Amino acid sequence: MTDDARTRMWTASRRATRILSGERPLTMAERLTALAAAPLADGRPDAYGDGVVEVLERRVADLLGKPAALWFPTGTMAQQAMLRVWADRAGTPRVALHPAHHTQVHEEDAGRLLTGLDPVFPTTEPRHPTAAELTATPGPLAAAVLELPLQELGYLLPTWDEYAAFTDAAHDRGIPVHLDGARLWESTRHLGHPLAEIAARADSVYVSFYKAFGGLSGAVVAAEPDVVEALLPWRVRYGGNVYMQFPAVLAALDGLDARLDRLDAWVDHAVVVARALAQLPELHPTPFPPHIEQFSVRADVPADALNAAVLADLEATGERWVHGWDDDGNGGAAGEVTVGDAGLAWSADDVVTVGRRILDRALATDRSAS
Amino acid sequence: MTDDARTRMWTASRRATRILSGERPLTMAERLTALAAAPLADGRPDAYGDGVVEVLERRVADLLGKPAALWFPTGTMAQQAMLRVWADRAGTPRVALHPAHHTQVHEEDAGRLLTGLDPVFPTTEPRHPTAAELTATPGPLAAAVLELPLQELGYLLPTWDEYAAFTDAAHDRGIPVHLDGARLWESTRHLGHPLAEIAARADSVYVSFYKAFGGLSGAVVAAEPDVVEALLPWRVRYGGNVYMQFPAVLAALDGLDARLDRLDAWVDHAVVVARALAQLPELHPTPFPPHIEQFSVRADVPADALNAAVLADLEATGERWVHGWDDDGNGGAAGEVTVGDAGLAWSADDVVTVGRRILDRALATDRSAS
Repeated sequence: MTDDARTRMWTASRRATRILSGERPLTMAERLTALAAAPLADGRPDAYGDGVVEVLERRVADLLGKPAALWFPTGTMAQQAMLRVWADRAGTPRVALHPAHHTQVHEEDAGRLLTGLDPVFPTTEPRHPTAAELTATPGPLAAAVLELPLQELGYLLPTWDEYAAFTDAAHDRGIPVHLDGARLWESTRHLGHPLAEIAARADSVYVSFYKAFGGLSGAVVAAEPDVVEALLPWRVRYGGNVYMQFPAVLAALDGLDARLDRLDAWVDHAVVVARALAQLPELHPTPFPPHIEQFSVRADVPADALNAAVLADLEATGERWVHGWDDDGNGGAAGEVTVGDAGLAWSADDVVTVGRRILDRALATDRSAS
Repeated sequence: MTDDARTRMWTASRRATRILSGERPLTMAERLTALAAAPLADGRPDAYGDGVVEVLERRVADLLGKPAALWFPTGTMAQQAMLRVWADRAGTPRVALHPAHHTQVHEEDAGRLLTGLDPVFPTTEPRHPTAAELTATPGPLAAAVLELPLQELGYLLPTWDEYAAFTDAAHDRGIPVHLDGARLWESTRHLGHPLAEIAARADSVYVSFYKAFGGLSGAVVAAEPDVVEALLPWRVRYGGNVYMQFPAVLAALDGLDARLDRLDAWVDHAVVVARALAQLPELHPTPFPPHIEQFSVRADVPADALNAAVLADLEATGERWVHGWDDDGNGGAAGEVTVGDAGLAWSADDVVTVGRRILDRALATDRSAS
């Protein structure tokens, strides 16, 4: 998107009457004012990880049923630190991962170039590795990583039985399981088990606060106390010992307060929205039905034409449909849907009606351009 | 300090009528409310380093007279990334540093254990290295680092001529100079040259925003565009690609707006305060006179007794003198003075009078305890 299109989308989205995917954007001032009204905001700011940072760590540890937890400025840092601790303990840099894991596709090869890790792939198929594949992977291994849900594959989850078998296979080999649970909060519906039961099968769990919870930034790793103790010097080494972080921490606490109980409703409605989108022949949601409140969509329409049509329709009608499409490299578009409270107002018929209108506009533009 | 003493100090400081060192503490809500009123706060939040982050980067680059600049969540990360870039370019991990540099004493040996750097010390004396010492240091060297001012030595600066000779010596060897300028803003008074002239003699300059400027966190590195380009993937690798950082960035911009023109007055008054403290026989400010608005003080009084006396006097009189003393390991106390706008209200006589009262109280406590 150009800067101009981005500003137009932001401005029009603030005035939107209805929003299908994502939420209404706020100004910085609006967010800061809301944070100033947070329950703990009348107290002393944090300094290098104390105060409200410790309040959030305690709360996340309790939610995940782990004895200890540690805040990090980003998940990228949190997971490198955690995997380095497991690697140092095991005396091997080899870590079992999926090649589509965030560390492999979005972090500039940090695992290899900075942390000194050596990724090993039990499978390269576009699905989670199986227990049998982990068992068959040559050793030694320092840890086995599962991303629940796996973002690059449309927020794909395993079944509970597949997950349980995988963690058993890791523990049978004597290696710890690390969960990339950036969106673990919203995975309980599909897995059919509460957070603490999911976390109990893993040895370290990373969670995030700026996806479903609408926070600003930040991550927490929960584990046994000796593991968290070993993370502390690595947090310093990566430059994660930040002087004050209360805005991000208050936002994370607010997100937990306001949204944790809303997630199941969003996941259920994501299924309704995905089924409606699938009625439009140009659209292909995946996975189908979706596993969490987010899922991928491919469109047989060029991204430029689709983005222009979404923006024009929003500016004309006040209705924001699925936006932010990327070129999929094959002449079509790749998009993502995130159902939150705003999306609950859309029935399946609404999704189809507005979608048809926008796709027809995009197709007409595309035909006139070629 | 115990949690209880810390809370008492914070509460009493908020009610203080006069503050000698540091500033009046604010609640999180007060800070957030102030940030919400910042000039740029009515706009779109940043996302992964765009928007207001770029505004701050541009402003810092201009102030330092460098063509480009890059934001980092912490100085620890910023300097490791910068030194790694210099090391990769030079094909050697050997970097000339002072053994009291922040990277050597406060970062859990990150340079060695994470970044793969090999520190080399032109001098181990408690002063800046000379040009001759750098020239005599065996090679190869990837970069020469100067911390201006050097925090661990009481915020010690070289003279301008020493600084110029050192940078010439580095460039004569063909190695870049990296400035740790966390407090470079307030060093211009002692060096007698403007920021851009100081920065022009260095190849990369790191500056901070939460010391004199009262920000929340964050750092910027300024350099040539190709150097900043090379920093970008390292910022990702260290986990510095943060989703939203506008609270820290707005606070940094606010600090620049409100305080850049105040620094000289603070530095001048720090000399007045240090001279007054030196009139008390138990106290030993260093360096003497100080080079910036911060300096170290040793006290021939146990830290516990001194902290208790400062707190009791503050609670009784509303006057906050020098606080936050640490045990110096020799039965005395090590402290630090930071003169800001609040400190300007103290004459030399005020500093001596209140100091004598507090020292006498501390000495009486100490005698009765032993």
